[in-house]
Amino acid sequence: MSRNDYPPVKVGLIGLGTVGGGVTRVLARNAGEISRRAGREIIITHAAARNLDTTTANTAGMKLTGEALEVVDDPEVAVIVELMGGYEPARGLVLRALANGKHVVTANKAMIARHGNEIFAAAQAAGRMVGFEAAVAGGIPIIKAIREGLAGNRIEWVAGIINGTANFILSEMRDKGRDFAKALAEAQALGYAEADPTFDIEGIDAAHKLTILASIAFGIPLQFDKVYIEGISRITREDVAYARQFGYRIKHLGIARCDEQGAQLRVHPTLIPQQHLLASVNGVMNAVLVKGDAVGQSLFYGAGAGAEPTASAVVADLVDVVRTLTADPENRVPHLAFQPDALSDLPVLPMESVETACYLRLQANDRPGVLADVTRILADRDISIEAILQKRPKPNASASDVPIILLTHPVREQRMNEAIATIEALDSIRAPVMRIRLEPLDSD
Amino acid sequence: MSRNDYPPVKVGLIGLGTVGGGVTRVLARNAGEISRRAGREIIITHAAARNLDTTTANTAGMKLTGEALEVVDDPEVAVIVELMGGYEPARGLVLRALANGKHVVTANKAMIARHGNEIFAAAQAAGRMVGFEAAVAGGIPIIKAIREGLAGNRIEWVAGIINGTANFILSEMRDKGRDFAKALAEAQALGYAEADPTFDIEGIDAAHKLTILASIAFGIPLQFDKVYIEGISRITREDVAYARQFGYRIKHLGIARCDEQGAQLRVHPTLIPQQHLLASVNGVMNAVLVKGDAVGQSLFYGAGAGAEPTASAVVADLVDVVRTLTADPENRVPHLAFQPDALSDLPVLPMESVETACYLRLQANDRPGVLADVTRILADRDISIEAILQKRPKPNASASDVPIILLTHPVREQRMNEAIATIEALDSIRAPVMRIRLEPLDSD
Repeated sequence: MSRNDYPPVKVGLIGLGTVGGGVTRVLARNAGEISRRAGREIIITHAAARNLDTTTANTAGMKLTGEALEVVDDPEVAVIVELMGGYEPARGLVLRALANGKHVVTANKAMIARHGNEIFAAAQAAGRMVGFEAAVAGGIPIIKAIREGLAGNRIEWVAGIINGTANFILSEMRDKGRDFAKALAEAQALGYAEADPTFDIEGIDAAHKLTILASIAFGIPLQFDKVYIEGISRITREDVAYARQFGYRIKHLGIARCDEQGAQLRVHPTLIPQQHLLASVNGVMNAVLVKGDAVGQSLFYGAGAGAEPTASAVVADLVDVVRTLTADPENRVPHLAFQPDALSDLPVLPMESVETACYLRLQANDRPGVLADVTRILADRDISIEAILQKRPKPNASASDVPIILLTHPVREQRMNEAIATIEALDSIRAPVMRIRLEPLDSD
Repeated sequence: MSRNDYPPVKVGLIGLGTVGGGVTRVLARNAGEISRRAGREIIITHAAARNLDTTTANTAGMKLTGEALEVVDDPEVAVIVELMGGYEPARGLVLRALANGKHVVTANKAMIARHGNEIFAAAQAAGRMVGFEAAVAGGIPIIKAIREGLAGNRIEWVAGIINGTANFILSEMRDKGRDFAKALAEAQALGYAEADPTFDIEGIDAAHKLTILASIAFGIPLQFDKVYIEGISRITREDVAYARQFGYRIKHLGIARCDEQGAQLRVHPTLIPQQHLLASVNGVMNAVLVKGDAVGQSLFYGAGAGAEPTASAVVADLVDVVRTLTADPENRVPHLAFQPDALSDLPVLPMESVETACYLRLQANDRPGVLADVTRILADRDISIEAILQKRPKPNASASDVPIILLTHPVREQRMNEAIATIEALDSIRAPVMRIRLEPLDSD
């Protein structure tokens, strides 16, 4: 069957808060790409929320109810997305959805950490899937990475910055010399911390996530009650400063380690070497470092919370479910991610049409007027300059050989090629112009 | 069926060089974990190499041949692992393996970048899988991350450090002020660069990988011949230094970007902001930064080459294939990564038995003898001290309140608990001891 022959997969959403809104938005906005990848459309047909009046999600076309059970029991729904959070009634609803023959996708780390063993056994018995990528580290596909991508390894340890609120507070304490209370207040003002921040700052949320990571890394049942948990509320700004003097940063880590004796599961503030990549993970970002015996250290970094990053993980799980429902096992994941009949004929643009800022290094005669000539050539082509560095000649170079270095604002390659050719034709320019393109790597 | 009912999956290996040796080693060493994950054993039963005498791989129990075709045509073999590299005869062998009904796992980026469209069409027609996780960024599961983990996103761009040799050379130029030729010679001496380093330093290897990344990110056919390619051989140490003065580092990046007009595919030296996480990826390490519209920026970091990191990716693909052959679609990937009947009852250790180095902060009376008392208490318990910091009192603190900060060497939690309790019982200690555990995060 080609993908156009499959009817859409109907999803029932439980919870229309921040993440629920993100999921509806991402599924709608990327509907085309998603069905090109999954092999069929994924649409939310049913949704439940405690308070339907307050949701800002676009629920057009959905059958709405205040009663989650109605969605879970609706025979039309093939997959339940559970975004209500908490232990109950989430657990009961998920078990019931599985009993009803539905697949489940959830972002509920508390429920998985505490009731996952029971839920997975029920899913296994029912021949249904429970996707929980969104339960750990938001948009970072860390469950998939460990469970599948690193499946050849004996995982020795996992260390993660898996609570953005705590990481934001520690980053503020370090970067701005704030004390804990002030940094917490700022996190609350910015919406990064709840009015009652206990779960985040006392490590309970991180412990939920660590429980899950440890199980998939080591193949042990979920054991939330065995995690050692210590929060960050006792850390002072002096501790942050002293740690720095020793060459360390304080991060709130979830650490799981495994050897023949047993497994360690612990969440606590931790000094880590400041030159380690993990020490550079700042603000609300998350990162998980995995040590496998074959792969060595791998780091997975990204947004650990927020409506759309979490939605990214939820939708990935939906695509996973749908790919499995739709394809022969061998063609579950298309080789090039998109279904073979859905590849795009989008052109690859010629380099001349690419636009980047540029670094230019010129070797010029040290005589007045060179810089004026060069800047004129650039100005004539509407290439604006961000910075200029004119160096004294190197001691061993001829006295007349002076490097001029420029940074330009973004410019089309073609126009820059012309400018460089014109500059190289100047008598006062001694060597080919060195051009290195610049990428700000910001979120444009 | 439980996993014990499935016979082993028989793999034929083509190529017994460095990576081939890594694959045999990892499959043997982690056989238990791998079959607990995959649901059945994976064994290499056949292997081919041009020169069987020179291989250092442990080939005990394998049927060996100098003729790759024999392995590809052997009806006993279910999966071919192609590690010979290059365009031909690899392409012909892979196509033949697919025609023979075998699945294929390959680390061959050149072949996939150039002939992938043909190979994937053949695989699709044959209902067989071609795994190529090892073709891009070695042990980093970046193919899986983009193809599955970020499947909810419109991928806007991908920027990667995907050639370890080039990154090593640029890192040496920056950190040690070396010029290009010297850094290259060092890379060659260390075995990071080949005698003919052209593929690595002129960007061709990176372009192969970028071709693959762009296709799975944007859903376009593989188009290696449209990649703009520029190497690093013209970069001088002055360029590195000037870039630093502007606040940038020079990295050799593969960049793919996509909008309505078309796709950009380019490999070139690039200035990137020095505070960006990607700028801290040094030496032979690889990293791929992916910008998705929902997830934002995600970074995937790890070893991009080497026998065992590459083997990690090859074996992950093998597990992927085997999970699909073995399980009902719904139970393809076990929820907790390991088959439900293969979870371990390894104990979770009590915190008292965990061993870490510690940071201790004490608030002491400023009188002679406190430090002697404290160090005696630690020495009595065989806790050795790595560093001590004794601060003058804070201006606003009582003059007798002096912080003492210590770093210890690794010590068992229980012994440290006792030491802390004893220290806190001293008359001269004014407040609870602050203890923060330390993790070096090195590759132990």
